[in-house]
Amino acid sequence: MRPTITAFKNSPDRGKGLARDMPVRWALEEVGRPYDVRLVSFSEMKQAAHRTLQPFGQIPTYEDGDLALFESGAIVLHLAQRHQGLLPDDANARARAIMWMFAALGTIEPPIVEREIAALVERDETWYEQRRPILEQRVRDRLNQLSRRLGDDDWLEHEFSAGDLMMVAVLRRLKGSGLLEEHPNVPAYVARGEARPAFKRAFDAQLAVFTAGSTI
Amino acid sequence: MRPTITAFKNSPDRGKGLARDMPVRWALEEVGRPYDVRLVSFSEMKQAAHRTLQPFGQIPTYEDGDLALFESGAIVLHLAQRHQGLLPDDANARARAIMWMFAALGTIEPPIVEREIAALVERDETWYEQRRPILEQRVRDRLNQLSRRLGDDDWLEHEFSAGDLMMVAVLRRLKGSGLLEEHPNVPAYVARGEARPAFKRAFDAQLAVFTAGSTI
Repeated sequence: MRPTITAFKNSPDRGKGLARDMPVRWALEEVGRPYDVRLVSFSEMKQAAHRTLQPFGQIPTYEDGDLALFESGAIVLHLAQRHQGLLPDDANARARAIMWMFAALGTIEPPIVEREIAALVERDETWYEQRRPILEQRVRDRLNQLSRRLGDDDWLEHEFSAGDLMMVAVLRRLKGSGLLEEHPNVPAYVARGEARPAFKRAFDAQLAVFTAGSTI
Repeated sequence: MRPTITAFKNSPDRGKGLARDMPVRWALEEVGRPYDVRLVSFSEMKQAAHRTLQPFGQIPTYEDGDLALFESGAIVLHLAQRHQGLLPDDANARARAIMWMFAALGTIEPPIVEREIAALVERDETWYEQRRPILEQRVRDRLNQLSRRLGDDDWLEHEFSAGDLMMVAVLRRLKGSGLLEEHPNVPAYVARGEARPAFKRAFDAQLAVFTAGSTI
């Protein structure tokens, strides 16, 4: 029985792997679980059938037998708890790995997303150029703190975990901004994540949706 | 052995229970675990000793023997997984309860916090009044979706869980804004959370810090 996830029919990032199906695909690849994908359009995401699965009208969702989940963090954690490969065996080390998932989504991601939203929605507003440095500084402060904690380690808690998977997925949203490169250990950390075979399989799978089908 | 959490020495919300120690205190009360509190000032939060525990210079932290955690969501989930009372026994129902923790922190909270940050930091900027309705609409959209999903149920998945605890803690940040009241089932849901004896004990404990010691 293969689980089914949902992803964008027309990915707004044109296949850069920044949509939220990417960490779920990556986790599925890390734990070696084959999966099916149901593509949904933006209009389908707003309709009742999808809202029943995802009350906020977003992707991804995850269906596996009787279980239906949304929220990429919850899906990745579910996979990590049910399968080997994404969480250490030691109970305290597991709690710390899960802590980094929450840090990625709750502390690092919000200022990154705010910067993106402003660029998308407020680019033509008179205040955009004045707010931009404020938004960048909020991102920079978090990257600075993350860089100091990471130091010379390969991963946040020495061994790759679901916490690193989520953190790398979040940091990838900054590619091209120049912000990651201000702390060399941060882009090196992202590159280590991207070099994992499971990441590459997941990336190629989401890219294939775009290259095969998009006619935006 | 009692765990120790950190909380603000001088709470910026003047004891309204909006700081992030509140959901951790609430969870500790729900599972019946006595705890100690170490109060930290804003300057102490930026110092190396606290940074070792919390790389982003925030509260709360959680120390229990060999385990040290930060991120309120991770601490609440850790408590919920180690003790009875905050997660259902059925595996799929547990996954759904955890999903709502991620939804509270990753989907509902970010627009609420953005609205707060703007009011704190950008109130005197020329664009503040123009941006305010945009920020409120982002909150409103999420509340509307949450209200529809909640419907006539008491809790998000029928029985109170760590997902409701986190969601109520997040929604309480909107008290006084008038936004909660646009969907009557939402403030009723928040009130159900606040009526729980464990909430009240946690609320009183955090308030006591402010009424006893604050000389801001």
